[in-house]
Amino acid sequence: MGRGSVGELVAQARDGVPRAVARLVSLVENASPAVREVAAALAPHTGRAYVVGLTGAPGVGKSTSTNALVGALRAAGKTVGVLAVDPSSPFSGGALLGDRIRMEQHATDPGVFIRSMASRGHLGGLAWGTPQAIRVLDGAGFDVVLVETVGVGQAEIEIASLADTTVVLLAPGMGDGIQAAKAGILEVADVYVVNKADRHGAETTVRDLRGALALAGDRGSWRPPIVKTVAARAEGVDDVVAAIDAHRAHLERTGELAARRRHRAAREIEAIAVATLRARIGEVRGGAALDTVAEQVAAGRTDPFAAADQLLAETAN
Amino acid sequence: MGRGSVGELVAQARDGVPRAVARLVSLVENASPAVREVAAALAPHTGRAYVVGLTGAPGVGKSTSTNALVGALRAAGKTVGVLAVDPSSPFSGGALLGDRIRMEQHATDPGVFIRSMASRGHLGGLAWGTPQAIRVLDGAGFDVVLVETVGVGQAEIEIASLADTTVVLLAPGMGDGIQAAKAGILEVADVYVVNKADRHGAETTVRDLRGALALAGDRGSWRPPIVKTVAARAEGVDDVVAAIDAHRAHLERTGELAARRRHRAAREIEAIAVATLRARIGEVRGGAALDTVAEQVAAGRTDPFAAADQLLAETAN
Repeated sequence: MGRGSVGELVAQARDGVPRAVARLVSLVENASPAVREVAAALAPHTGRAYVVGLTGAPGVGKSTSTNALVGALRAAGKTVGVLAVDPSSPFSGGALLGDRIRMEQHATDPGVFIRSMASRGHLGGLAWGTPQAIRVLDGAGFDVVLVETVGVGQAEIEIASLADTTVVLLAPGMGDGIQAAKAGILEVADVYVVNKADRHGAETTVRDLRGALALAGDRGSWRPPIVKTVAARAEGVDDVVAAIDAHRAHLERTGELAARRRHRAAREIEAIAVATLRARIGEVRGGAALDTVAEQVAAGRTDPFAAADQLLAETAN
Repeated sequence: MGRGSVGELVAQARDGVPRAVARLVSLVENASPAVREVAAALAPHTGRAYVVGLTGAPGVGKSTSTNALVGALRAAGKTVGVLAVDPSSPFSGGALLGDRIRMEQHATDPGVFIRSMASRGHLGGLAWGTPQAIRVLDGAGFDVVLVETVGVGQAEIEIASLADTTVVLLAPGMGDGIQAAKAGILEVADVYVVNKADRHGAETTVRDLRGALALAGDRGSWRPPIVKTVAARAEGVDDVVAAIDAHRAHLERTGELAARRRHRAAREIEAIAVATLRARIGEVRGGAALDTVAEQVAAGRTDPFAAADQLLAETAN
């Protein structure tokens, strides 16, 4: 893909052409050869979107909450790009059922872009594709980028490292207070939402969560609020937006927003440097260099540290 | 630590001084500055030991089996170095109860060395410390290096990637046939051992395992045998040794042993290269280089790929 067409795609994306945005996400997600060119073309337009991470266990109502949150943000005059990251799926590109349902509601709204992403690719999941996709939506000019993922395994920790504000969803009757404490969610959440607050046990969930938070002790100057919602009826969702805004104001006031973003960029650069190094190692002398030193190490003719130094020296040439 | 003393330690280790072996394991395990020197001094003496991995779910009798296997190998005239890797423990150095029990039995035998290792260190678990510790025991001249670990999470996959022969232990009445299929154990085992074979349900476990293996289809020319043992009474353990020997003969005949070892060395070299790169990135201009490019990326003045290239170029100087 020539420079012209990437530049044109970025221009179209910034003009609000959904197809161009989708194409750029595909390019970075699949680590196409154009990925560097896309990143370079986007860079001058990045750093403006506010990135919100939304996570929670299966069944707490993440899709419904995302949908309601998009509605509330649109009502506040903000454009929203949504990345629905499925850490267990090898499928990408908006083919999921959840997407179609959500697309129906926001399909005619040019201020909303929704995209499903698989994270189980060969490139190491969230760590690789998601930050690049966030850069696309940021560069395309969306005011808010909402990254939604299922809170299983390490996914919620990874999302938190990518987001400016991390919203953790809970629901009554799932023992979530304890689950949250276990899963390390208490360490990543900036805002808690107890969804399905009209259900039996909602107050218990709020109380359990307060108890767990009190036990966890102080996490600096920000005290994560607990917001109750019934996302299916859009109840309490404005309060979620207000909590996100309050957290943003806090981050800006303390200078923590810039610090978080620098830290995020540093992690991203490191991950790319490591991936680049791995690729270069695979390319040195047509891939023969690694085979050669591996054989020498296996035969006891050199040690793995000396072999690694030799490879690193060759990749630098 | 001067070159003289590392060389002396290696010489002592090769003379069978357990304290010297233990000291070398500690040096590589803690990634001491001497780790490169140790690896270089060991290299000429490596590549001779046969590495056996032994894994299984908690409760199948791993410690007892390791103990019995060490006895059988000693009876066959082989010296044995044992690494008991605990993927969940932050504690190392032979302080565990299991070690003391095993040490009592083999404490007076200079042909046996037993060492516990934690894998939950800051350097990435099995991937870092275990191969280096294997190199120490290999270089010290043990005929067999036995690496034992609990088959939880990714540990059994990692062990399999380090071993010449991987032995997977099962026991009756734990639904292990299904567990094995789930955990991907079917893809890594070269020899299956159904321990506690005197217990009710042992035949069912063997049958379930045969069924699962048949379903899993052909894995090349080697068909993993299923051996029944009562490790607590050392019954069937000679059959395990015979199965390992048969697998070794197969690997040697097909040339797969050399291929496995080259592959293992390549992975080890890559891991060291990546760790070295990360360390160098942290050191460029006293750590300021990463901060500087991260700030530029966060501000949209450059993109993360260009920043990574710049860092890589600086680390190469």
